[in-house]
Amino acid sequence: MSNKNIMLTPGPTPLPPQVLEAMSRPLIHHRTEEFGGMFAGVIEDMKWVYRTKGEVLMMTCSGTGAMESAVANLLSPGDKTLVCTTGAFGDRFVAIHKAFGLQPVVLPFDWGRAVDPEVLRRALRANSGLKAVFFQHTDTSTGIVNRLETLAKIVREESGALVVVDSVSGLACERLETDAWGLDAVVTGSQKGLMNAPGLGFVALSERAWKAAQTATLPRYNFDYRIMKKSLADRETPWTPAISVVAGQAAALKLLRAEGMEAVWKRHDELAAYARKLLSAKLGLPFYAKDPANILTGIVLPEGVDGNKLLANILKEEGISIAGGQLHLKGKICRVAHMAYISKSDVEAGVEALAARLAKAKV
Amino acid sequence: MSNKNIMLTPGPTPLPPQVLEAMSRPLIHHRTEEFGGMFAGVIEDMKWVYRTKGEVLMMTCSGTGAMESAVANLLSPGDKTLVCTTGAFGDRFVAIHKAFGLQPVVLPFDWGRAVDPEVLRRALRANSGLKAVFFQHTDTSTGIVNRLETLAKIVREESGALVVVDSVSGLACERLETDAWGLDAVVTGSQKGLMNAPGLGFVALSERAWKAAQTATLPRYNFDYRIMKKSLADRETPWTPAISVVAGQAAALKLLRAEGMEAVWKRHDELAAYARKLLSAKLGLPFYAKDPANILTGIVLPEGVDGNKLLANILKEEGISIAGGQLHLKGKICRVAHMAYISKSDVEAGVEALAARLAKAKV
Repeated sequence: MSNKNIMLTPGPTPLPPQVLEAMSRPLIHHRTEEFGGMFAGVIEDMKWVYRTKGEVLMMTCSGTGAMESAVANLLSPGDKTLVCTTGAFGDRFVAIHKAFGLQPVVLPFDWGRAVDPEVLRRALRANSGLKAVFFQHTDTSTGIVNRLETLAKIVREESGALVVVDSVSGLACERLETDAWGLDAVVTGSQKGLMNAPGLGFVALSERAWKAAQTATLPRYNFDYRIMKKSLADRETPWTPAISVVAGQAAALKLLRAEGMEAVWKRHDELAAYARKLLSAKLGLPFYAKDPANILTGIVLPEGVDGNKLLANILKEEGISIAGGQLHLKGKICRVAHMAYISKSDVEAGVEALAARLAKAKV
Repeated sequence: MSNKNIMLTPGPTPLPPQVLEAMSRPLIHHRTEEFGGMFAGVIEDMKWVYRTKGEVLMMTCSGTGAMESAVANLLSPGDKTLVCTTGAFGDRFVAIHKAFGLQPVVLPFDWGRAVDPEVLRRALRANSGLKAVFFQHTDTSTGIVNRLETLAKIVREESGALVVVDSVSGLACERLETDAWGLDAVVTGSQKGLMNAPGLGFVALSERAWKAAQTATLPRYNFDYRIMKKSLADRETPWTPAISVVAGQAAALKLLRAEGMEAVWKRHDELAAYARKLLSAKLGLPFYAKDPANILTGIVLPEGVDGNKLLANILKEEGISIAGGQLHLKGKICRVAHMAYISKSDVEAGVEALAARLAKAKV
């Protein structure tokens, strides 16, 4: 008997019915007052999610596009930067730098570990003249969370560098205070904590970051923040946006507004604790992350278990999507997400499916 | 009494109910066999639309992103290029070049005119060593169509340059034969002839273009064709795609497949002829384009009529979206689209609304 489809993946995450309904409406043309009102509302609500009074810009892209936009808009050829890597997405920031001809100083941490504040401090002291320091808020490849409040404070104490954060998977799941913590650029995507379909990227910019964007000289056009900001004054995007996904975002933000940010964070605290308790009780397998985020739990699979096959079978036979490991972790871990619109019962179904198969070694 | 909302705009265009329904379905995770099958189907169907046996790649972006991808992937610093401009979108290709540090030779044609083949030939003879020549297929700012078969032939005769085409608004409306006409790179977007919501870009690449993409050195990461092609082998996109919009695209392509490309083109021929006959009879105003495309008809408004106000009122009071003029044509022309899922009755309603207001000078 087949289960309903359950998505326990750390992005895309399942969509609330209000979001699906919004996306199924006939398109509104993007150069109309009606769209302008919806778009301006999304930007205002995003400021509320970001906890910022600064600029928020929207673009049609995946999270990677939003990450690239931060590099291309804030930096110039020859700029010195520091990239803290805590998994696959830190490596992606490095790859983007290299694609744009920059050679960042890379500060790698063991997978499963967050950035160590004192190691960061030493790296900042050893590298003067940094233009920007790059962090992940959470890294879905490992399930860690970085303590951005502490890290940003150290960057401020030791350097004049901009603090650039990839919060594609963290925003609206884990606490984040753009203004209060002094984060200069925070990029995100629509398909995780924002409870929407993929297709939109956002960036929050401090005044310092906005100034940097006006003089930086790396090439960009599609992702040029200056062009986006000019259109935003007319409640427009410069290029045709993913209108249906904007409608979905407006609906999802309405749900987050109704719940309240503190309540959203608390819900994630509680669901993460519940998921880990359940995973411990039913599976008894070690957790992968030493500095775990609220967004997902990575579980180290027993030797001899083919994780890829296990998860493929659970999807095929029970309709439950659980993510496997990335890169060198492929087949060795599985990642149970407990974020965004994922519910307690979704987590229970996923843990049940894993437990049943692992117990019988019926992979 | 309010009309149903009618979109007579040249992108986004109205969506078939099958597309809206597809976008309202729960998300499929993008690293699954189910998504892989859908995505591979979209790529196959796009090859059919493009009339190519070459590569087709998909990205999450607006049409402008797809245009930028062609510049960034095919060119290197210092490359000589020729950009033929026939309206706002030719200017956009120039702006993208400049943002990437290139100084193209610009061959401008009067707005409302297509590229003149013999002027192109002279420009090619006067500029040796061109790496690429850029064209619009159709330009929605003016409503012209370029005769790409002839133009591409001349480029082949006079130079070794790649033929790069922006067919964001032309594809699946106006005839286009990627392989037979020798087009090397053809970019498009999902929200026009492809009858889908905005959010996806595509490019078709000839073997020559694919070779160029492998050695070109302009910076790109999010839009890197090499990374996309690698993922395509696994029926994946490298970054999380706009999954709902991909589902919409699969549904829309199914409709185009059922109709057949020849029939789609014929339908556009006929609807354009019908719209122009109706516009002549009911409005009696001059058409803007001297080399008109099948996608839309630009009408020159009488002196003293404020086009912006006219169209805003039609939208507000009758729910019909008609596009105005862009840049120096703002307020001076209106553009009635007759493309994609726009129907005969939609066109009739739009012409009626224009005629009624213009007759009474009740703007």
